[in-house]
Amino acid sequence: MRIKGVHHIAVAVDDIEKYSKIFKNLFDLDAGDIEINKANNVGLSFVDLNNCEVEFLKPLDNESAIAKFLAKRGPGIHHFCIQVEDIHEALDELKKKNIELIDQTPRQGAGGSLIAFIHPRSAGGILIELKQEKEE
Amino acid sequence: MRIKGVHHIAVAVDDIEKYSKIFKNLFDLDAGDIEINKANNVGLSFVDLNNCEVEFLKPLDNESAIAKFLAKRGPGIHHFCIQVEDIHEALDELKKKNIELIDQTPRQGAGGSLIAFIHPRSAGGILIELKQEKEE
Repeated sequence: MRIKGVHHIAVAVDDIEKYSKIFKNLFDLDAGDIEINKANNVGLSFVDLNNCEVEFLKPLDNESAIAKFLAKRGPGIHHFCIQVEDIHEALDELKKKNIELIDQTPRQGAGGSLIAFIHPRSAGGILIELKQEKEE
Repeated sequence: MRIKGVHHIAVAVDDIEKYSKIFKNLFDLDAGDIEINKANNVGLSFVDLNNCEVEFLKPLDNESAIAKFLAKRGPGIHHFCIQVEDIHEALDELKKKNIELIDQTPRQGAGGSLIAFIHPRSAGGILIELKQEKEE
C-alpha cells in the first residue's frame, strides 16, 4: 500500500459551528465551509493543521454508526484517515490478507474523494479510513 | 500560538507488541522501539505515517486517566497531539483566554520533549496534547 500520510483526524460532534468556534478560540484556526455529504448523511467541515486536518463530523440521522457513537459517548475523536495513492490497490492488498473491510469497494467521500473503512475488528478496535483524493 | 502541525495520534492499547503487529500487517509499517516513560507511567511506541505518527500508549498502572479509559472503553484513539514552536508561549496564550489546562506548566514527554494537555472541558470533550520537541 502506498501511503501518503494521515489525511485527517475525525471528531464526531453535535454542532459543527460550536466546534469551529472552539478551535478558533484555542488555536486561531478557521474551519472551512460546512459540506453536506448526502452519500453518508453527514455534515462536515475541515480545519487545516498544516500537515493534516481535523474533520468535524455531524450525523444527520439517528441511525448511522456516527450517530450511535455520539449518543453513546458524546463528542470525541471517532477515527483517523490515511491518504493512499491508489485506494483500489490498497483494498486489494487488504483483501488478500483477509482483513475485514466495512467497504469492499470505495464510496464517495468529501470533495470528490474515494474512501473506504477498515473494520475495527481487523484493526484492534480502531476505526481507520482510507482515502484517495480526487485527481486534479 | 505557532503551530507546526499534528505530531501524533495516540491510541490507548493493552499490548504494544500486538498493535505493532496489527499495523505491520495492515500497512507494512514498523513501530519504533518501546520507550518507558516513567514520568507518566506509560509504555509507548511510535509508527511513522510520513507526515505524522501514530503512538501506541500502554498504561503501566491501574489508576491513570489512560488506564481508566482502557478499562472503560477498551483500546482506541485517546487523544491527538499538536506540535508547537514554543510550548510556554502556547500555554501563556491559552491561560490568557481562560482555557482550562491539565498541565499549567510543561512536563517531560517522549524523547526529551515538553508536553502539556488542554483539559477536554475547554475543548468540547476532545483531549488535545501540545508538544515542543527537544531542541537539537
